[in-house]
Amino acid sequence: MNDTSPKKVIDVMMQNDAFSKWLGIERVFDGTGNSSIKMVVRREMLNGFDILHGGVSFSLADSALAFAANSHGIQSVSIENSIHYHLPAKEGDELTAKANEISKSNKLAVYEVVVTNQKNEKVATFKGTVYRTKNEWKV
Amino acid sequence: MNDTSPKKVIDVMMQNDAFSKWLGIERVFDGTGNSSIKMVVRREMLNGFDILHGGVSFSLADSALAFAANSHGIQSVSIENSIHYHLPAKEGDELTAKANEISKSNKLAVYEVVVTNQKNEKVATFKGTVYRTKNEWKV
Amino acid sequence: MNDTSPKKVIDVMMQNDAFSKWLGIERVFDGTGNSSIKMVVRREMLNGFDILHGGVSFSLADSALAFAANSHGIQSVSIENSIHYHLPAKEGDELTAKANEISKSNKLAVYEVVVTNQKNEKVATFKGTVYRTKNEWKV
Amino acid sequence: MNDTSPKKVIDVMMQNDAFSKWLGIERVFDGTGNSSIKMVVRREMLNGFDILHGGVSFSLADSALAFAANSHGIQSVSIENSIHYHLPAKEGDELTAKANEISKSNKLAVYEVVVTNQKNEKVATFKGTVYRTKNEWKV
Repeated sequence: MNDTSPKKVIDVMMQNDAFSKWLGIERVFDGTGNSSIKMVVRREMLNGFDILHGGVSFSLADSALAFAANSHGIQSVSIENSIHYHLPAKEGDELTAKANEISKSNKLAVYEVVVTNQKNEKVATFKGTVYRTKNEWKV
Repeated sequence: MNDTSPKKVIDVMMQNDAFSKWLGIERVFDGTGNSSIKMVVRREMLNGFDILHGGVSFSLADSALAFAANSHGIQSVSIENSIHYHLPAKEGDELTAKANEISKSNKLAVYEVVVTNQKNEKVATFKGTVYRTKNEWKV
Repeated sequence: MNDTSPKKVIDVMMQNDAFSKWLGIERVFDGTGNSSIKMVVRREMLNGFDILHGGVSFSLADSALAFAANSHGIQSVSIENSIHYHLPAKEGDELTAKANEISKSNKLAVYEVVVTNQKNEKVATFKGTVYRTKNEWKV
Repeated sequence: MNDTSPKKVIDVMMQNDAFSKWLGIERVFDGTGNSSIKMVVRREMLNGFDILHGGVSFSLADSALAFAANSHGIQSVSIENSIHYHLPAKEGDELTAKANEISKSNKLAVYEVVVTNQKNEKVATFKGTVYRTKNEWKV
């Protein structure tokens, strides 16, 4: 066990997470096994259809999953992820990603993430498995 | 049918694809139903573990899939994607994503993408489904 | 639109669904876009580890998804599915699969299914996309 | 390390795998990290559309993956699987599932499986991750 607070772990993760900074991620809630983060869609995140590149909504969801998974104080890395797209997102949209823990064992855990826009419509749903390493976060 | 060349379609897609530009994507091969692209991992693409953020390797694969899927001249959008991570990538690594068409019907098509590094090691494998709309690319 | 009741559509589907009969599926709830079904794990459903073969829990979830998706009266077929296993199931366990609609457009819809055992523990979670054909169910 | 032959491990697995027996699985090739198996589609495997229930093609692929993954002599269990359907299968079709290892580390391995019919058309493609336990197969 490890009583490191989720907030402290995610502080350290975010400090060194250059890509999450580029995304402009803002933390809404740091839970134990849960996380909520948000970002605003910028021009440079759009694809050739002038809508948000799927890779960016994926990245937001992936960061939410990473925060939720590492919140237990154990370094945990993604094995696989999948995403379903429900609605396009546009420049200026504010997206929120909420990650919830579905199951957790000694070495593995599974999370689902829902990405919604400012109207609370589902933009994407995401799911993923992490491998829980032997390393604790030193915070 | 549509005899638009893959090269012309992808020229137009890339012209307007701000995020693929940010990724620094370079086209290696524009095929009909296939695509190969590459990029170099930059500092700002790393996560809190100092390795490539999963969302960035996903994005590279997703762009390869988009080019392969749209190469037929029909506007096609991702429905769902999944990724498995095999090896971490680091700053300076050169990643290549090759997309191949597995199946294509009137309204749907499925692609798989392999992402390799400069040593030709598998970094990630990716799979996805697109919906083929009624709109042709005007190029 | 189509005001065919979910119950009638699923009656017809079940009548002809030999494999769902082999599974011993019992319907708990027939909703519009939702479905709940259950079955008991039998000896012949076990794999070489003496636990439920993954393909059988998948099949139960897949049937729940099919009932939920077709409940609107439009013939709908699976494009892709994914499953995460959380706990093994054993002979005699009673499994319930609940399917919920996450999104639905003209041609596509996405469902998630949770499979639980008689202790209400999560055994598996499942997700999938269907293609909505032009054919209505005649019931 | 473990020099148990794939053939011996799969002999033991098949002996106790009631559901693979129900499927009528016949082994074509037992490799190290690879497997090829086949079966014939029977009436009782069909769904309400009178085509092969998705859960059965999934089960065939899942068994191929299990044989490939356990062929190293280490007991390995599925964490997650996904399947894409390309063509329907009908009563009397002979389906072959070939599983290949994409990556393998100490605790995890990833496989892809292609399911083809007697005309060598792709019926489904399948992917999955296993967790490699500490237990060796005693054969």
